[in-house]
Amino acid sequence: MNDIPFDPYQRACPSRTVLDRVTDRWTVLVVGALEAGPLRFTELAHRVDGVSQKMLTQTLRGLERDGLVTRTVHAEVPPRVEYHLTDAGRGMLEPIHAIERWTLAHADAVLTARAEYDTVHAAS
Amino acid sequence: MNDIPFDPYQRACPSRTVLDRVTDRWTVLVVGALEAGPLRFTELAHRVDGVSQKMLTQTLRGLERDGLVTRTVHAEVPPRVEYHLTDAGRGMLEPIHAIERWTLAHADAVLTARAEYDTVHAAS
Repeated sequence: MNDIPFDPYQRACPSRTVLDRVTDRWTVLVVGALEAGPLRFTELAHRVDGVSQKMLTQTLRGLERDGLVTRTVHAEVPPRVEYHLTDAGRGMLEPIHAIERWTLAHADAVLTARAEYDTVHAAS
Repeated sequence: MNDIPFDPYQRACPSRTVLDRVTDRWTVLVVGALEAGPLRFTELAHRVDGVSQKMLTQTLRGLERDGLVTRTVHAEVPPRVEYHLTDAGRGMLEPIHAIERWTLAHADAVLTARAEYDTVHAAS
């Protein structure tokens, strides 16, 4: 598909739009939530606390478009719709785990640094 | 600082604002660019192709506030200002490498999936 190596540091490189997929808060939380197994829309909305219906719909549509999530409609009455990770979507778990590890390990330090910065800059 | 474990899946947890730091396109590219060593503002703007002066300023200020980047003013005429990663900032390289690895490894597949999705959905 592409003879030039991908380089997200170049603005015209299409890989930058792929970088945007994984550097997205709701994508990280939705894919992380789907790691344990398929979920329905309402279950996802509950698990990813605070996501609006509109943002969750957009995020799931983007993930489907990128081949990372599949939507399955089970033939029941009423139909049950579930979202699950594709194999490619499971591949995203590596960076997502690294993001979550870093967040949990450094949250205290970052929040402390922020509070100190704001004290200094409010005083000056 | 905090007795309740951090959980970015909860909207009120302050760790969600820390997650937002690492799930930010310009942060990922700026910190990645600083891995090799300190850079001046204009060098960073050149390396992170397409970043606006305003976004780069905002990103660097956010990284300074979070204790991840330090700004050093060298006493020269004219003064030379350089940005470099703190130790905490270097800790961010683990998730950033994972993000970049995923992006480069999956860019082709994601771009192909997108093109197919758009063809199907334009036709229907």
